[in-house]
Amino acid sequence: MSVHHTQSVILTGDRITGPLHLGHYTGSLQQRVRLQHSAVQYILMADMQGLTDNGAQPEKVNRYFYDVAADYLAAGIDPAHSVICLQSALPALAELTLLYLNLVTVSRLERNPTVKQEIIQKQFSRTLPAGFLIYPVSQAADITAFKADLVPVGEDQLPMIEQTNEIVSKINHVTGQELLVHCRAEVGKTGRLPGIDGNGKMSKSLGNAINLSVSADDLTRAVNAMFTDPQHLRVSDPGRIEGNVVFAYLDAFHPDTALVAEMKARYQAGGLGDRECKSVLNECLQALLAPIREERARLMADKSYLLSVIRRGTEKAREVTQQTLDQVKRGMGLLIF
Amino acid sequence: MSVHHTQSVILTGDRITGPLHLGHYTGSLQQRVRLQHSAVQYILMADMQGLTDNGAQPEKVNRYFYDVAADYLAAGIDPAHSVICLQSALPALAELTLLYLNLVTVSRLERNPTVKQEIIQKQFSRTLPAGFLIYPVSQAADITAFKADLVPVGEDQLPMIEQTNEIVSKINHVTGQELLVHCRAEVGKTGRLPGIDGNGKMSKSLGNAINLSVSADDLTRAVNAMFTDPQHLRVSDPGRIEGNVVFAYLDAFHPDTALVAEMKARYQAGGLGDRECKSVLNECLQALLAPIREERARLMADKSYLLSVIRRGTEKAREVTQQTLDQVKRGMGLLIF
Repeated sequence: MSVHHTQSVILTGDRITGPLHLGHYTGSLQQRVRLQHSAVQYILMADMQGLTDNGAQPEKVNRYFYDVAADYLAAGIDPAHSVICLQSALPALAELTLLYLNLVTVSRLERNPTVKQEIIQKQFSRTLPAGFLIYPVSQAADITAFKADLVPVGEDQLPMIEQTNEIVSKINHVTGQELLVHCRAEVGKTGRLPGIDGNGKMSKSLGNAINLSVSADDLTRAVNAMFTDPQHLRVSDPGRIEGNVVFAYLDAFHPDTALVAEMKARYQAGGLGDRECKSVLNECLQALLAPIREERARLMADKSYLLSVIRRGTEKAREVTQQTLDQVKRGMGLLIF
Repeated sequence: MSVHHTQSVILTGDRITGPLHLGHYTGSLQQRVRLQHSAVQYILMADMQGLTDNGAQPEKVNRYFYDVAADYLAAGIDPAHSVICLQSALPALAELTLLYLNLVTVSRLERNPTVKQEIIQKQFSRTLPAGFLIYPVSQAADITAFKADLVPVGEDQLPMIEQTNEIVSKINHVTGQELLVHCRAEVGKTGRLPGIDGNGKMSKSLGNAINLSVSADDLTRAVNAMFTDPQHLRVSDPGRIEGNVVFAYLDAFHPDTALVAEMKARYQAGGLGDRECKSVLNECLQALLAPIREERARLMADKSYLLSVIRRGTEKAREVTQQTLDQVKRGMGLLIF
């Protein structure tokens, strides 16, 4: 007896406020490249979301549009299998956001743990932009517009999925139809890749990132600058693995896990120097990034091709999201012109 | 020396949650009919705004779509001189709303006096829908999308105009261009028409309204039921004009002001009965509403014509609002696809 599985519909995406780095590669790009063959995958270039805390510096939001597009394709996202689209060019997302906002209370938004945490991080308080407070509703619009049932997220984004499913239930209740699709979070198995300084996760704003577009020389410099074990002064000293960025990266990127295990044992026992570890890591990252860098350079020299890819993806996304919007509007008794 | 005045651009509109009544007629329709010849006038059928406090009963919002359209035309709004359009069919309004929300703080929205007042009236508190809190930003999107420089409002709506002009300044500052147009409120000279019970303004929800579509018999009944002076028991008694609904209506509708002045004098002195006053008013309102009722019935029998009028207006409005959106997006450095 054969069982038919319908394909999952996945929505992922990135704020496009900077070029993508190795944190994006392990955190999401690899997974997307794998999943694009077994699922319907939409990748949203989230410029509107980027504006929610850059309202007064909008120039930040599209400066890296081509870089991110090139990063996607160079990392293996295939436009024949993934739909890459631009958020601000999908009016249905804004329209659904406004419709959903009538079904979510202000106090519910204020209780959102992720938003609370970010308000502290970004040092908003009385200056909190309204667009930032409501961005979980905007994300719900993104997810539901594509009828995505699977959303790969970090653990800290789980409240967004909860908020989305609440809205799905409300719209389905109000319209009396199973119009929208409940979604499931897929929380990444690998922890977040630390920055090269070992302080928190890799991030452009923390200045501790290795971009996918890094030059061979800058990559070597970055690996050499990585935080290891400050107590590990001589090669013969025993060294610590925990908090050691080099080993975190070897775990994340080196294909030969037996070799990495052996290196860890030697490092902890004493007798393996940081320089040798960094040399192994550098070789591995150079091998990973050389073809990406080459493909990326080729793509960046052909911006009209990149634009045409995103344009085509956006047209496809426009059809899908417009259809959902029309269904919701019809379900609410609004006229469709 | 001749002075060239550029035409004003006016945005007005109505929540379309009920048929229009005499309060609308004196409060806005008459003015619109007059202004449509000297200004560019857009009339927004505000179904999206109607949803901000009817999120869970969306069926309320379009039930009266054809009634309101017929009310407009029967009252003298001429589609050749006014653009009547449907808010939910103008995606640029939703997109501008989301862009503006990033430039307005939550505390600024919470300070809005009109919203504060309405929150009390509608008995929201912890159940305040986010869409309701942000509706001033949505109104700012409506006004600015049409580049309206003149907005006829009630006195209680002045904070909305202030909020709109703050957003205009911010967008012009952020984009470094004079993209959006500051607007001026035109506060109606006539006070609000009281309901027939004398309690507050005429309103569908208070059940004290006379609709433009009222039958001749119901009109007579409504006039006879009007609140006058409860102390005025005999014709010979002196009567009060203040708070007397019949005289408020005679002031608002009777073309012969000299006659009304004379009636007031006789009423105050004693010697004029309520019945005679009501009879004069009834005759005057019957004369006003008979042609409107007839035209309205003709229009309601041809809904496809009504739909075509709104559709054409909405197409025109879509062009204008889309152009503004594109300018704002370009000014912010967003890509236009």
